[in-house]
Order: sequence, then C-alpha cells, then structure tokens
Amino acid sequence: MALVTKVEHKVSKEHFDRVAVGLRAELLQLQEQLKSQDFPVVLLFAGAAVAGKTEALNTINEWMDPRWIETHAYGPPSDEERERPEYWRFWRDLPPRGRIGLTLGSWYHQRVQDFVYDRIDKPTYFQALKRIAAFERTLTDDGVLLLKFWMHMDEADQKKVMKKLQKSKTDAWRISKSDWKHFKHNRAFERANEIAIKKTNVAAAPWIIIDGLDARYRTLEILTTIRDALKAHIRLRSNRRKLAEKARERTNRVRDAELRAAPAEQESAARGKNGSLDAAASKRSAARQPTILDKLDMSLSLTDKAYHTAIQDSRAELGDLCRKLHFAGKSALVLFEGPDAAGKGGAIRRLTAAMDARDYRVIPIAAPTDEERARHYLWRFWRQLPRAGRIAIFDRSWYGRVLVERVENFAQVDEWQRAYTEIREFEEQLSASGLVVVKFWVHIDKDEQHRRFKEREKSSLKSWKLTPEDWRNRAKWDDYSRAVDEMVERTSTPSSPWTIVEGNCKKHARIKVMKTLCDALKKAVLADRE
Amino acid sequence: MALVTKVEHKVSKEHFDRVAVGLRAELLQLQEQLKSQDFPVVLLFAGAAVAGKTEALNTINEWMDPRWIETHAYGPPSDEERERPEYWRFWRDLPPRGRIGLTLGSWYHQRVQDFVYDRIDKPTYFQALKRIAAFERTLTDDGVLLLKFWMHMDEADQKKVMKKLQKSKTDAWRISKSDWKHFKHNRAFERANEIAIKKTNVAAAPWIIIDGLDARYRTLEILTTIRDALKAHIRLRSNRRKLAEKARERTNRVRDAELRAAPAEQESAARGKNGSLDAAASKRSAARQPTILDKLDMSLSLTDKAYHTAIQDSRAELGDLCRKLHFAGKSALVLFEGPDAAGKGGAIRRLTAAMDARDYRVIPIAAPTDEERARHYLWRFWRQLPRAGRIAIFDRSWYGRVLVERVENFAQVDEWQRAYTEIREFEEQLSASGLVVVKFWVHIDKDEQHRRFKEREKSSLKSWKLTPEDWRNRAKWDDYSRAVDEMVERTSTPSSPWTIVEGNCKKHARIKVMKTLCDALKKAVLADRE
Repeated sequence: MALVTKVEHKVSKEHFDRVAVGLRAELLQLQEQLKSQDFPVVLLFAGAAVAGKTEALNTINEWMDPRWIETHAYGPPSDEERERPEYWRFWRDLPPRGRIGLTLGSWYHQRVQDFVYDRIDKPTYFQALKRIAAFERTLTDDGVLLLKFWMHMDEADQKKVMKKLQKSKTDAWRISKSDWKHFKHNRAFERANEIAIKKTNVAAAPWIIIDGLDARYRTLEILTTIRDALKAHIRLRSNRRKLAEKARERTNRVRDAELRAAPAEQESAARGKNGSLDAAASKRSAARQPTILDKLDMSLSLTDKAYHTAIQDSRAELGDLCRKLHFAGKSALVLFEGPDAAGKGGAIRRLTAAMDARDYRVIPIAAPTDEERARHYLWRFWRQLPRAGRIAIFDRSWYGRVLVERVENFAQVDEWQRAYTEIREFEEQLSASGLVVVKFWVHIDKDEQHRRFKEREKSSLKSWKLTPEDWRNRAKWDDYSRAVDEMVERTSTPSSPWTIVEGNCKKHARIKVMKTLCDALKKAVLADRE
Repeated sequence: MALVTKVEHKVSKEHFDRVAVGLRAELLQLQEQLKSQDFPVVLLFAGAAVAGKTEALNTINEWMDPRWIETHAYGPPSDEERERPEYWRFWRDLPPRGRIGLTLGSWYHQRVQDFVYDRIDKPTYFQALKRIAAFERTLTDDGVLLLKFWMHMDEADQKKVMKKLQKSKTDAWRISKSDWKHFKHNRAFERANEIAIKKTNVAAAPWIIIDGLDARYRTLEILTTIRDALKAHIRLRSNRRKLAEKARERTNRVRDAELRAAPAEQESAARGKNGSLDAAASKRSAARQPTILDKLDMSLSLTDKAYHTAIQDSRAELGDLCRKLHFAGKSALVLFEGPDAAGKGGAIRRLTAAMDARDYRVIPIAAPTDEERARHYLWRFWRQLPRAGRIAIFDRSWYGRVLVERVENFAQVDEWQRAYTEIREFEEQLSASGLVVVKFWVHIDKDEQHRRFKEREKSSLKSWKLTPEDWRNRAKWDDYSRAVDEMVERTSTPSSPWTIVEGNCKKHARIKVMKTLCDALKKAVLADRE
C-alpha cells in the first residue's frame, strides 16, 4: 500500500511533554470559542484496528472539555435503526453547532467490510462510496468542519502490536477473534481502503493519514491538525458571515428600491387591502414567463355524487393497502405543499380517515425548534422518518428550503440552489431503503385563493386560519410560481415524482390525492410480493 | 364483573347526526385553544379487544385536527427500549404542552397480561400498579389532563362481535389467534382489570367506563367527555396561573423588603464586591441552623505523592470495572452537584480519563431547550438515559429542581416540595432496571470558593468560567445550604445514596469520587455474577 512511505516517525517524551502543555491550552481555548460558532466539528477515525483510533478518541476527550464532545461508535444497528434508511443513525447523531462529534466505525466501516467479504460487488461498493461523498459534501456545504483521520500501520507492525497486546494482562481483551479474522484479510482491506480513500478524498473533507506506530507522534499529529483546522475554520466562517451579511444588505436595498417604485400596491397588499393587490399583481405578471402551474386545467371538478362514490371506494382501497403495507413492514412518506388555503389539511384528513391511527403520523412543519435550528436543515426531517410499517404525512416539508426560504431570502442563493441536489439525494436514500415517497403540490389559482380568504374572514370557525402573513405571501404569487416551477422541474425523479393536484375543486383534489397514493402503495405492495 | 350494570345503551342515527356536528365544531375550537395552553392532554384507551379502542382513536383523529395529535400504540418494546428502564418509552412519547397524545396498549397492558398469564405474582402486580399510579400522579401534578377510558363489553357480546368480524371479508384480519387465546382467559382478565382499575382510580386521573357495544353511543360518550374535561381543565389551569402569579408577587414583595432592610450588603454582593459580602453572610448565618454541610471535615487532604499513587491505582481499577460493566451489558449514571468552583468538572475529567470514550457520555445541564421546556422537567433527563453497557455522567442534574429552582423561586413551593418524591421514584426505577446510580455533592466552604473565584479572575485561561451570576449565587450561600441539607436528607436511599465529597483539597475530592464510583461499580458487577 502506497499511502505512507515507511518513515520512522518518533517523538521523544521530552519533546512531547514540552509541546503538549501549550497545545492543550490552545485546544481548550478554541473549544471555548467554538461554543458560540455557527458550525459543529465532526472528527472521524478509521484505519487499522490497533493503530490508535480508540486512544485518539480518549486523548481528545481527556485534553479537551468532554462536556461539549459527543462520541459515537457504530456497531451493528439497533432495530430502530434497521427500520430506517442506512444514514438515519448518522444523521440522528450529528452534533449541534458549537460542539464536537467523534465518530468511530462510521459510515465507512460497514461498507468496506461488505466489500472485503464479498457481500457486495464492485459497482455497489463504488455506489456506496458515492453516497458517502455526497453525505459528507452535504455536511461540509452546511459549514461542518469535517476531519477524517486514517490511522495507518503496515501489516508487520500490526501483527507485532496485536501479539504484544494479546500477551498483556491488562490489554488482552482488546484483541478479539474477529480482529485476527480481519487481519487475515489485511491485503483485501488495504485495497478496499485505498479505493475508499481515493473516492472520498475531497478538499472540503480530506483524509489525513496518520502513521499510527508511535503513540506520542500520532497524538501530536492529530491534535495539532485539529488545532490548525479549527483556527482556520473559525476565520473562514467569520469571513463568510461578513460576505453573506453584505449580500443580504444588497438584496434588501434592491427590494426597498422596488418597494419605493410601487409603494401603494405593495403596501395595500401587505395590509391585506386586496382591491389594489390584484391590479398590482396582474401588472407584474404581464412580464413573467409561463410556469408549469399555468398549464394546469383548473376547471377540473367532480359532482357531489361522483365524489361520494369515489371517496368511499378510495377509502376502502386505501385502508386495505395501508394494512398490507403495515404487515409487509414497509413504510411510506407522503408530503403536501401548496399555496395557503389550497386545501392541504382537508386532503390530509381524508387520507387519515381511511387509515388506522396506530399506523400514521401527521407532521405539521412550522418554525423549527432550537434543537433543530442548531443543525442542518434536513436534520429535522430525518428525525421524523417513520418506522417500518408506518406512514408519515408531512404538512409542508423540506421543500420550504426552495420555496419560502428562497422567496423570502431566508436562505442565501447558494444555499437554496444546492438544496435541489441535497433533496434529490435525500429522497433517493428514502426510496432506496424501500420507503414509498409520494409528493403533492395542491394548487389553486389566485381568484380561488382570494375567494377562500374572504370566506375565512367571514366564518367565525375558520377566521383563526387567516393571518396577515397569508395576504403578504399572496403578494408574492409570481415569485412562488417561479419557485414551484423550478422545484418540480428539478426534483421530480422516477422514484419520487411530483403530483400536481388541481385544487380549485376540493372534491376533485381529494380524490386525485387518494387515488395517486393508492396507486403508489399498490405498486409498492405488489413489488414486495415478487 | 360489576363495573357496568348491563343497560341497553343505544343512540339512534338521527340523534347522533344531530349532536355530532356541533360537538365536532366545539372540539376543534377547544383544540385550537389548547395549542396555547400550558399543558398537554393524554387520552388512554384500554379494555376489551373488540370494544372500540381502535375506532375511538380513529374517530378522534378524524374529528379533530390530526396535525396536533400523536398516536402511540405499544407493542413489544424495541431493543433500544428494552435497554432502558420500563417507563423510558412512555416518557419518550409524552406529547408537549398544547398537544394531544393518544395511548393504546399503554403502561397497563403488559402488566395485566403478565399477571393473567402468571408471569408475575400478586405482590409484584400490586407493585406494578403502584408504579403506574405514581407515574400518572407525576403527570397530573404537572398539569397533564389525563383521561383513561375503559372500553367495556361483556363476554357474550365480545364473542358475538369477534365471530361477526371473523366472518367479515373486510375485517377478518382484525381477529388474530392471540385474540382468541386472550378471550379464553376472559375471566382472569376481568379479575386483573378490576384490580388495576381500583388501584389506579384517583380523582386526578379517574377511569371512565364506556359501554362498548353500540358504536354511536360510545363515540358520543367519549367525545363529550373529552369536550367537558378539556373545557374544565382550561378554566382550572387559568385559575391556577392567576393564583401562582399572586403568590409570586407576594414572594417578590417579601424579598424586596428584605433587600431594603440590608441594601448595602446585598448590593455589594450582587456586584461582586465581596469584602462586605462575607460580613453580610456571617451576620445572617448567626441565626441559621447547622446543616449537614457544617459537619464535614473540610480539612481532609492528600499529599501529592499519596495522590499520584492513588489516582493511578483508581484509574486502572475504574477502567477495568467499566469494561466489565460494558460486557455485562449494565449501565451506570453518575451525577455531580455542588457550589460553583467546587471542582465538579475536574473530578469528571479524572473519571473519563479512565474510561473508554465509546462507553461514556458527559451531559452538561444548562438551560433547557424549547422542546424540553414544553414537557415535564424530568423529561429531559429521561431522554438522556444511557443504553446498556454505557455510562452517563451528569454535570448538574434533576436536583436543580430542589436547589437553584427552589432558592431562586423558579419553581413554586408545591412544585419543588413534591419533587423529592418524584425524584425518589425516578431513581428507584433506574435502580430497579439494574442501572447503577451514583450521586456526588462536591463541597467547598465559603473561604475556599472565594479564593477560587479570585484565582479565576486573575487567570486568563479560566476567567471565562467566572460570571457575575457566580457572585450572586454566592450571596445565597445559606439558602443553598438549607436546600442541600433537605435534599440529602430526603433523597438518600439505599439504592442511590448521596456521597458528600469534601472538596477544599481537589486531590482528596478526586480520589474520593474515583473510589466511591469504583465501589459502586464493583458491587454491581459482582451482583451480576451471582
């Protein structure tokens, strides 16, 4: 293996003691600084069994303040983990911003072993490494400082250390039968590792190869690397924040200028005086490009009679399919997006009325909690993934990133632009794990929304549903249309396509939702039987 | 069984339809009100298999807004659940304030079955029911609206319904072999249920017996009960809030009066000018009762040499014991309380230095997150319980309830007073599940704290550790002493005793902590072997 040319890396006790004191003080101070930073640190350790991975974790915990460090070592998954997509457990354990996560037997371990022991073929292995690279990119794009340490030790040295440990009274427990078994396949492991390292060695998350033979050398190497990287990353993020701040100011200036250009229209829109609103909107829409939403046949409707027959049939079918899904141990995820008052809630209630309350969970997406805000925006959705046999229904979803966050400038341009890829990858993982993903955009046109808002204002039972924000969102109708157009275009995939539901007629919309879901579940249940 | 005298409870379709519309509207409005209330609702359904439990869940989800309802049906525990105390999964699923949780196969189900099938004897069953009653009291004391519905149906009717379902094309799947098996033991179930109901039928969480034969009757019964209870509870809680507000005002007035009586001392204490602080404190302490802390021999100390020998021995022993604990699949919980600057952090780091980073987790307790604030104060600790083979180390803990929350009036008097019982019950459950609980109060006296604060002020590396709040807390030394005294007195139990550590000499403190933990783990590991 050519990763490391064999050089004697040794550090004397005197040198170590001299350097260690200052290094430790620096690390503690950096850790203190980190607490108020907007990113977490993930340190990953991989490599030969006896090359010092565990010792590295222990030293970091000893030198730094263990209260702000989380250590996660991955063995076989628990049954709650097995019932979800592979990466659920890694997402679940991601540290919040300001903290350090240490990872052992990480997302690499299982896959490397699978390949070495011929449980997967080469293309599958490559695919798995691609998934790893994508996962790590998702983290680093979000600002995570990800350092991957590869503890290296050549075969002869490994053998020596293992034999020595085995003879030791206090350390013999560390060498198990499976360690020797793995060791017999050392060549194969080296090959597999070399591929893994090559395929996942990117600038944002490079591999740091550490010669594991000398304990003092490797300790100093690892800890100075952490110190330098942490220092640099804090500086980098602070610069980025400043740039982002400037960009935001610029955007706001442009918007303010626009507002000054058409003050009356905008203001009345914001205040909910909607007479002039539609005039303003139609003036703007004159210039705009047609979107996918313009091509919908919004006149689609159902008679009462047709609806009642259809809803009863669909209800029976859906109930039956959900039961089959449950007994097959498969899970499903249904999500709803759409303008305010489009009837998402009503459609959801027609679905759940057909299901057993023990099998589904409706997850309304509003403002994130502070635990959610402290992590990647996808974390809050990962944590809600259903167990085997269950159905999760999302009332709004991760698509907020490319809808409201885009339109309202909550996310920066590069953030929502890369979200298309992140979301595609996320949903691919769900589908790959056997989870059925069904996505609905329930649409209404502007006139219909106006009618429903007015109705809500009048109805005492529904008036709480209407807020000034609804009127504000309405003023940005065209911006939303563009965002929806791009979203559907970029995130409709064979395994999780968008279904656009013409929602002016609630009856039509509800039946279309029911039937689409039935078709998707039927396919899944049938596929499972084959 | 005398729970229900057999009366024909029937509701006509006309009556049902007439009542349902209004009832449903009321429920939706109450649910909307609930969202901003300071309590959650837990609805529990138990009783005969075919008496309408599942239908009740479904109806509630259908009539109300399912987005704010969580349904939890408990089957066999997952392995993550099995590795923790029995109630972990119920705590885990508690809904946050403002939401509704529906519970099926709840904390009763397993225990009733155990008793019917002779897996536990009568005293154990009674014990389990006591635990249930205590758990429910903990919830209702915290304001939870807990309604327990017992769906009743006599043997003959059950049989009829089961046979009918079995013949039905669409519903046959609902009757399994185990349903018939349970049915054979119907008499035993009735006896076990009757005991359960009697032992857990308290005013704050009464059983509501519902005749399950007629679907329309039981639906109206359940939903009107929910409506009435919810209405009454909202009123009750609002009155309580007003009373609590008045009580708080009164307390503040008393404190302000005290402050005016001794303005100079208190102010300087708050500002951290601690010359006069000690004078003020000693004046107050003249009148106070001696506490357990006054009886400590604070002169206990260790020489450097003795320390170095002892720490090395303890470290080796602790490391060895943690490994044994790990392989035995047992877990431990170590918690630290003590005044600021007492050396809790230092003691924790000496412990973790002896452990494998994969086996422990240090959990610093600071301000709760908003997800935690939305639930019972013990919830945030339940969620952190370690899996089998792991050790959780708490830097501060649930004892904050009877320390800082008591002294600072964050908790009301009745809240912190009942916390002693809640905490004792909580720890009993941990111990009963085989978890080793070790509790340390690391103490320093006022002079030593003063010395350490001054030292921190001077040291650039440690100055961030000292905040104005530390000086403020110091001014309340005597209040804290009283609180500690009562805490130790009321929460030292045979299975989880307090260890008071004389902390003026850090070396002595660290060794005492190490040795105490070693002793506790040794006992657990040995007990396990027997």
